[in-house]
Amino acid sequence: MIKKEDRIYFEKLFPFWEKLTHQEKNYFIINSRTMTFTKGVDISSSPECFGLTIIKNGKIRVFLTSKEGKELSLFFLETMDIGVLTAQCIYPKLQVSINLHTEEVTEVIVMNPEAFSLMRKRNSEVSDFNMDLIYTRFSEIIEQMETALFVPLSVRLIRYLLKQEKKELIITQEEIARHLGSAREVITRNLKLLQNAGCLQVSRGKIQILSEEKLKTMLD
Amino acid sequence: MIKKEDRIYFEKLFPFWEKLTHQEKNYFIINSRTMTFTKGVDISSSPECFGLTIIKNGKIRVFLTSKEGKELSLFFLETMDIGVLTAQCIYPKLQVSINLHTEEVTEVIVMNPEAFSLMRKRNSEVSDFNMDLIYTRFSEIIEQMETALFVPLSVRLIRYLLKQEKKELIITQEEIARHLGSAREVITRNLKLLQNAGCLQVSRGKIQILSEEKLKTMLD
Repeated sequence: MIKKEDRIYFEKLFPFWEKLTHQEKNYFIINSRTMTFTKGVDISSSPECFGLTIIKNGKIRVFLTSKEGKELSLFFLETMDIGVLTAQCIYPKLQVSINLHTEEVTEVIVMNPEAFSLMRKRNSEVSDFNMDLIYTRFSEIIEQMETALFVPLSVRLIRYLLKQEKKELIITQEEIARHLGSAREVITRNLKLLQNAGCLQVSRGKIQILSEEKLKTMLD
Repeated sequence: MIKKEDRIYFEKLFPFWEKLTHQEKNYFIINSRTMTFTKGVDISSSPECFGLTIIKNGKIRVFLTSKEGKELSLFFLETMDIGVLTAQCIYPKLQVSINLHTEEVTEVIVMNPEAFSLMRKRNSEVSDFNMDLIYTRFSEIIEQMETALFVPLSVRLIRYLLKQEKKELIITQEEIARHLGSAREVITRNLKLLQNAGCLQVSRGKIQILSEEKLKTMLD
């Protein structure tokens, strides 16, 4: 059961919340609880079935892994995001192996998957909400994969650099490779090209963006 | 409305069929119809909303396209398969652009999307069936994309060749490239390597598989 102050997450995130009966609301509240994961936890390999997961704070990286250990980030779950893909245990037809790792200490609200499933079957608004969530996530995943498949790495790397809020990134080339589903050597080669063009200054575990303008021109 | 003999598709493909009332069955039947597409039709770009689509006979290729026109086959819909991804018009949250082209003359049963949606909301068995279908399809799509992302083209090409029923394939290298999300030059280079290894005999618009055994050893 979640605390009274945590109900705000349901009120804000569930479009159907106000339409539920008092009893239905209570059922959701009783069947939910908060959990805290430390940094670096592999949530996806937990033996526990989480079902619907609301992020109170922290950050979870959602990514694919190849047999050879290559990775590709799909998206990040942050405050007020809802995760549904941990729900594989309740949807046996969902045969994808997607990894979820906490990037920071992460506090979540998890709902008992059987309870959510029951509500979904009894209330078509909950069912629609669930479908919307799933479609949204799948759209994001497919878009990310499409980009990784069809957009050249050089372009994806520049887009990634332009998306960063800071001018100085404390990140290894290995981490960028993992994020973009590439190999470290390929990232190194591409970063060197950008450095030679005067866009960046690359040093060990650090990348300094010298000119966003120049970076943008490299996209043409 | 579909003909009496076409009800067999519903009976065989809908696990919930026998649990429906007479009235519900009738509602499905009245709101469905058969359609025939000629070969080479782009169903996905049709202005009409199809919703659930059952393939009576024929073959539909489901694939992704990049802005630059690169393609990647996701799966094929054949007799007794059910398509759900044409349903973008009823699920606005599904923001993926997946192409469906008929590879042969294809006869389908399509259900009015609003009617199916209504049944899904009223009957949790229909809703579960719909979810299962969507999860299955998405799992297939993600698996295909994962393979294209993480498995080297040389390996995917050999797997593709081994999957063929015939020893002599009447197919252009351009078609294989489109199927595997690659470029023709890359396919040509890889086919040459396999020919030099004595696995194949490649000629214009035709590939003859000389030894499946040798092909398999190339996977190691």
